[in-house]
Amino acid sequence: MPSVTSTSFDSERVVADLRNLAERTGGEAGSRRLCWTPEWVEARNLLREHLATLPVEIEVDEAGNLWAYLRGESPDLLVVGSHLDSVPKGGWLDGALGVMAGLELLRSLAASGRPPISVALVDWADEEGARFSRSLFGSAAVAGTVDVEILRGLSDKEGNRLVDILPQHGVDIDRLDGARTRLANVKAYVEVHIEQGPVLESMGRGICTVTGTKGIERERLIFRGQAAHAGTMPMPMRRDSFRAASRFALAAAEIGDRHDGVTTVGAVACKPGVVTAVAGETMITLDMRHIDAGELAAMLAECRTAADEAAAAEGCTVEWEHIFRIPPMPFHPRLLDAARESVREVEGHDIELPSGALHDASEMARHVPTVMIFSSSTNGLSHTAEEDTPHEHLVMAADAFHRTCERTIELVRAGELD
Amino acid sequence: MPSVTSTSFDSERVVADLRNLAERTGGEAGSRRLCWTPEWVEARNLLREHLATLPVEIEVDEAGNLWAYLRGESPDLLVVGSHLDSVPKGGWLDGALGVMAGLELLRSLAASGRPPISVALVDWADEEGARFSRSLFGSAAVAGTVDVEILRGLSDKEGNRLVDILPQHGVDIDRLDGARTRLANVKAYVEVHIEQGPVLESMGRGICTVTGTKGIERERLIFRGQAAHAGTMPMPMRRDSFRAASRFALAAAEIGDRHDGVTTVGAVACKPGVVTAVAGETMITLDMRHIDAGELAAMLAECRTAADEAAAAEGCTVEWEHIFRIPPMPFHPRLLDAARESVREVEGHDIELPSGALHDASEMARHVPTVMIFSSSTNGLSHTAEEDTPHEHLVMAADAFHRTCERTIELVRAGELD
Repeated sequence: MPSVTSTSFDSERVVADLRNLAERTGGEAGSRRLCWTPEWVEARNLLREHLATLPVEIEVDEAGNLWAYLRGESPDLLVVGSHLDSVPKGGWLDGALGVMAGLELLRSLAASGRPPISVALVDWADEEGARFSRSLFGSAAVAGTVDVEILRGLSDKEGNRLVDILPQHGVDIDRLDGARTRLANVKAYVEVHIEQGPVLESMGRGICTVTGTKGIERERLIFRGQAAHAGTMPMPMRRDSFRAASRFALAAAEIGDRHDGVTTVGAVACKPGVVTAVAGETMITLDMRHIDAGELAAMLAECRTAADEAAAAEGCTVEWEHIFRIPPMPFHPRLLDAARESVREVEGHDIELPSGALHDASEMARHVPTVMIFSSSTNGLSHTAEEDTPHEHLVMAADAFHRTCERTIELVRAGELD
Repeated sequence: MPSVTSTSFDSERVVADLRNLAERTGGEAGSRRLCWTPEWVEARNLLREHLATLPVEIEVDEAGNLWAYLRGESPDLLVVGSHLDSVPKGGWLDGALGVMAGLELLRSLAASGRPPISVALVDWADEEGARFSRSLFGSAAVAGTVDVEILRGLSDKEGNRLVDILPQHGVDIDRLDGARTRLANVKAYVEVHIEQGPVLESMGRGICTVTGTKGIERERLIFRGQAAHAGTMPMPMRRDSFRAASRFALAAAEIGDRHDGVTTVGAVACKPGVVTAVAGETMITLDMRHIDAGELAAMLAECRTAADEAAAAEGCTVEWEHIFRIPPMPFHPRLLDAARESVREVEGHDIELPSGALHDASEMARHVPTVMIFSSSTNGLSHTAEEDTPHEHLVMAADAFHRTCERTIELVRAGELD
């Protein structure tokens, strides 16, 4: 194990780079780095300015991901990174922390001479999917999990089609598959990110190891009863779809809580949806997450039963429409050990959490040993201008990320991840 | 009491006139008599064609209501009527039944010579409020309950302002108040309407007396919690506004049921309203109705407590915004007796119901003795092309209306309603 304190990795510089990025592409109203817009390009230009001072090869792949390769003694590759793109009025840290920490890793490694293995920083394209509703765009393209036919149908709120916008950024949807070659020689992936939730803060901690990303089941439920006049339909004769949906929402919350997972009914729409009519139809969305595949399957099964019972109790029917599914992505045991040791060194504890949010790491974990480090999130907030993390937690997160990367480089060099 | 079977009132002709109206202004997709449109004018033209054959004076008042006066021995006035306007794709009977039955009353009275008192048929303008969201427009103008400043702000879905459309139909918003003079000499108001609900059908009956129109409390409730990431916010730490709204919706239904009233949560909107976020804010509408003012007040008070409890249970707050209120409008005891006798003669029972829907009769009942007769509604449906009533029930309803009017004329002539 090399001494990881001997290099020039400067965690304070990571925070300084983040503040600089926020000055150029953020402000009072939050980050303006919506993917495939000029302000996202501006953020990348800032990254390119930094990279221009380093001995790295910069490439943009077929999915618009930006790669900076620092060649080492071996072609075996450690990839680090995250994403510069943000949601509209987003936070200054979501994604940017991982990119700037990765930049600092390249700086420190380059300052120490040729590393034993090659290391690449990747700035994934359109992690947020905030404009065209397809998150993890760039990392999914590399992982080979993109359905091009679905992409063809996507438009933003103004009606601009994704397929018309991508060529402005050098991306040809028919050549997306070429990005998969980026996996060649990749032996490990490490990402540092803010938690985007309140758990670390509630424990009084600044950082932790991330055990994996939770599996997700995302469904649309349509409860159907009978639309009726709010004044003339007696209560006992009603078939009120909103009451059925209400029963279900409370049951689903209980199911998520009992399984130590999460269940969310976040969107709802009633038809006819007027003050003077019983809702004949109510659509709700259901998002369920768990780090354990068996628990997630059990939650889904119990929610199906609960939906049937809620519908029956109100004389309604219920139909399910599948939206999205991703299995839990547990991270690599050896890299988890490396992360745990690093967190212990930096903050002196063994706390680990699953990630409730998806990350580009979820796509990479399909193919290569992967691990993540979390920093805390103040008040658990993210995707808002109020997103923040205490300065000392950001420094610790960058430090733990660096130590994890040094340990990963050693594991790759020793062939222990093959 | 005069023999009411001696006149020429022909209930079958009422149904024939309704079918004729439906042929000209309805069809497969339902009625097209949206107020302040050419097809509503077409419906009125048909009514004018019928009226042209009778010895009546036709006038349109300052609110666009069409009046046909049959002068009698005395200026004391019985007003009968309802409305020709419909919701888009509406039913063939809602409103039209009362107008065509009133037309037949004028025919039968005119055929019998000069009546003892004067009788007027009124076709109220814009009862539905379907285009500009102000129902009971014409009758409220006559009753003096219109707030002109609110009218100035109303627009339809295409952005046309009510104040710009009304002059096309001879209505000047600044002269609306003049319609109140129509109340002069009015001694009674009688209206026949479809139930628009399932109660008569469920009892196996065709008609009934209407005891009054239910009072309404209409409110908007905004539950506020904390928007959060659906994946990263643990269940025990959530402040989920949709769960609070769900708890309230179920409690409100129980309150309405227990008081033998109705409570409806018909519209709902979540913010941010996406599948991946806990709803930080949920707006719902609440419509409550009861024929008894005390019961209605108790329902409102219990709903306020239930909303506080639902909000507290989910760590949320709740704010109320008042939308609309109208007290219960009980009909006149002497006219209720007249209606009951008529229903008993026609269908042989004493069934009476409060009206859960508002009617122009609600506005008239503020100032003059009023009563209504209901016919059944097939499957309880209204405001849809499927709206229907069995032929024999329509005939009975017209018959009971006629008998009630004959009795009312006698009561007015005898000065018993003064």
